[in-house]
Amino acid sequence: MFDLIIIGTGPGGYEAIMTALRMGLNIAVVEKDKLGGNCLNRACIPTKYFRTGAHLVEKLNVMNEYGILLSDYKLDYTKAWEGKEKAVGFLRRSLEQLLKAKKTPVYKGVGKIIGKNKVEITKLDGTKETIDGKYILIATGSVPVSVGNIKIDGEYVLSTEDYMDKLISLPGRVLVVGGGVAGCELGYIMNKYQTEVHIVELMDRLLPSPIISKEISRFLQRKFKKLGINTYLNTTLDEYKIENGEIRCKLSNGEELTVDKILLSVGRKPNTHSIDSIGIEKDEKGFIKVNEYLQTNYDNIYACGDVLNSPMLAHVASYEARVAVNNMFNKDKEKVDYSLVPWAIFTAYEIAHVGLNEEQAKEKGIETVSGYYPYTYNEKAVDEHESEGFIRLIFEKNSQKIIGASVVGIGASEIIHEVAFAIKNGYTAKELHEFIYFHPSLSEIMIYATYDIVVGKLFR
Amino acid sequence: MFDLIIIGTGPGGYEAIMTALRMGLNIAVVEKDKLGGNCLNRACIPTKYFRTGAHLVEKLNVMNEYGILLSDYKLDYTKAWEGKEKAVGFLRRSLEQLLKAKKTPVYKGVGKIIGKNKVEITKLDGTKETIDGKYILIATGSVPVSVGNIKIDGEYVLSTEDYMDKLISLPGRVLVVGGGVAGCELGYIMNKYQTEVHIVELMDRLLPSPIISKEISRFLQRKFKKLGINTYLNTTLDEYKIENGEIRCKLSNGEELTVDKILLSVGRKPNTHSIDSIGIEKDEKGFIKVNEYLQTNYDNIYACGDVLNSPMLAHVASYEARVAVNNMFNKDKEKVDYSLVPWAIFTAYEIAHVGLNEEQAKEKGIETVSGYYPYTYNEKAVDEHESEGFIRLIFEKNSQKIIGASVVGIGASEIIHEVAFAIKNGYTAKELHEFIYFHPSLSEIMIYATYDIVVGKLFR
Repeated sequence: MFDLIIIGTGPGGYEAIMTALRMGLNIAVVEKDKLGGNCLNRACIPTKYFRTGAHLVEKLNVMNEYGILLSDYKLDYTKAWEGKEKAVGFLRRSLEQLLKAKKTPVYKGVGKIIGKNKVEITKLDGTKETIDGKYILIATGSVPVSVGNIKIDGEYVLSTEDYMDKLISLPGRVLVVGGGVAGCELGYIMNKYQTEVHIVELMDRLLPSPIISKEISRFLQRKFKKLGINTYLNTTLDEYKIENGEIRCKLSNGEELTVDKILLSVGRKPNTHSIDSIGIEKDEKGFIKVNEYLQTNYDNIYACGDVLNSPMLAHVASYEARVAVNNMFNKDKEKVDYSLVPWAIFTAYEIAHVGLNEEQAKEKGIETVSGYYPYTYNEKAVDEHESEGFIRLIFEKNSQKIIGASVVGIGASEIIHEVAFAIKNGYTAKELHEFIYFHPSLSEIMIYATYDIVVGKLFR
Repeated sequence: MFDLIIIGTGPGGYEAIMTALRMGLNIAVVEKDKLGGNCLNRACIPTKYFRTGAHLVEKLNVMNEYGILLSDYKLDYTKAWEGKEKAVGFLRRSLEQLLKAKKTPVYKGVGKIIGKNKVEITKLDGTKETIDGKYILIATGSVPVSVGNIKIDGEYVLSTEDYMDKLISLPGRVLVVGGGVAGCELGYIMNKYQTEVHIVELMDRLLPSPIISKEISRFLQRKFKKLGINTYLNTTLDEYKIENGEIRCKLSNGEELTVDKILLSVGRKPNTHSIDSIGIEKDEKGFIKVNEYLQTNYDNIYACGDVLNSPMLAHVASYEARVAVNNMFNKDKEKVDYSLVPWAIFTAYEIAHVGLNEEQAKEKGIETVSGYYPYTYNEKAVDEHESEGFIRLIFEKNSQKIIGASVVGIGASEIIHEVAFAIKNGYTAKELHEFIYFHPSLSEIMIYATYDIVVGKLFR
């Protein structure tokens, strides 16, 4: 009997493997597809690979300012795709090699929990095998959702997973359905690699999530306009027809568009439909129910990641995996705590957030003051020709303690962790202002965003 | 009478201006040269500008991996120089415009304190003017030092300031004397812009500072070798002779080199020689003596920055300026605290440090354990083709509290602030391990560097 059976090797499963192997446990891994799950193979990592490329394409515009004179260049997305495969392949092989070195069995197939300690694996060839584990971790992630009238066919209408698996070269024209994270990330990438991009979004703004302030949505919207990315807010795709290899689309606002592909990026749902035959409890939305130690209704079966009703983020899955494996094998149990989850996306700007924004604080009845500073005068950003963006720090009004922040611009996804530490420690604006930041760094915007509050405004 | 006279507009003077104007004070500014001082005009900011360019030159090698096919390119350092002038000019004009908008008088000339409240300015045309201030801040910075036998002539033998002011195009061959921060930064820049670079360093390693671990020096040395930067450790320039527009150099190891320029970067000394006629006290090294509130022996005269015997760093000057102006005008006095000064340099790698390294801890008799993680497997770094580098976190052995860290590689100068916050809060390895970091981010190396200590090693 294994100490632990891990079903799924995405960011949750991966982290559980790392933790368990370091604890010296005897584990088994079940994976129906490629090692690394969606995050490594079809989402976070390939997206950021292409985004690095897209950002480098933008950099070509300023090369001259650094005395780098390019006579000419050509964009070849297929080469970028091959580069992505190499990067992802390297990371996947690192995991394979680790599992091999540790003699950890990897069962390739679909895992199903058929007893408190039993996992049945249906292999690719249809044969079945059953293994036993003292503990089981469900880390099977999520799958893309569809919209009623739009049918993913993998050829004309693609899921974000199809995008990563199949789109070796880019189409001339794309309609992206959904202006959330994936839509804004992939829309930007395709734009920089010279595809005509249209994004329809049902809500009244891009990135229509409560954690994203309206200020950020507006800022991104303006940039998309400059880049020539066409956005249609408060709009849906009502009808489409495939004719002579083209897709004729009718939008709810009456506009008609002809494109070569439709990319559906409207969200994901937990992948739990056939995970067990023993009645693991789920909530009304289909998420697996767990207690604060991440235990399901079976005390030896834990779950982590997108199967849970917690933020659907890779790093939340990893965090939950560390907590779950700890709670299985250590006496010192840890309760899961989602109060400080940094969040970032990489589109035309790097955008990051942690804690509460002004709108969220208002809803909770918290009075706030905020400190703002643009990248315009940040010397490091100016040196890099990256001076578009800003930081907004949110403080509770009376205590002047920091409760949240948004950062838009270069380095946002790293700087946000400083804010997370600051929130965790209950820092006031004054304490942040008295901290020493390296010069010239992007992080210095932290100090300048506190000036108005701590010392006074420059102009009244 | 002005509320405050600020002598010098480098990072200390600049920050004093910002703080004083926000406090609504009536100030005067004295500057003998360009607004912004050395940091803006000849050091931090132009160096990072050129370093951005040099790094982009390196990026050309991986463009193909992102499908960006360059047919050909040419490097033109003069264009980079012009770009640098534009960036620096923009920042300098921002300060000029602010001072104009706030009707703050700027006295162009050399300031000298001739009475407790009196500053005499000798203008460029030789005329003198005297102004009165309730408080005076000395922020006159530092000047480069020479080495006995090497004479800066501004043509063949350059100071780092000459480099920024005069070197509109790069020579074919350069000998850099001094392998410290400036030598390593400018050496790398020139290397990427196709100059043959030789660096001689008196000590047994590059960056021979106590705050830089030997591990980092070795890591950088290997990279310099790969890049074709020639380093000569334990070596001095013994003799040189200028002949037919070339410089023939004899090194202490017996080697002979012929170069076109010598760049002297062996350090700086406080610029205090003629700052006053009223006997402001200095220490034996020529630094101005101040108490922990940054007051000199005159209670209304404060000093900040390189004139003080504190770390010679731009951000330390800015920090001191904030403290000094606060202490002049606010009841709530602040003592200066240098226990957490982040430090970074931008050479072939971004290198950053805060707190104690292992060697420093050992000297203080502190037993340590350390956590190491290379960038090799950091997904974000792999996505960016930036996977050379590592983090080393240093913990006090018994408490497992973090006391320092070094980061080498992309993002180091930002990530180091997270460590600074962590040290400030006395975090243990376990607390750092339980923190949630965004995936994929560079900051995630923090969590992986704690795995060995908190959970266990992968291989024993």
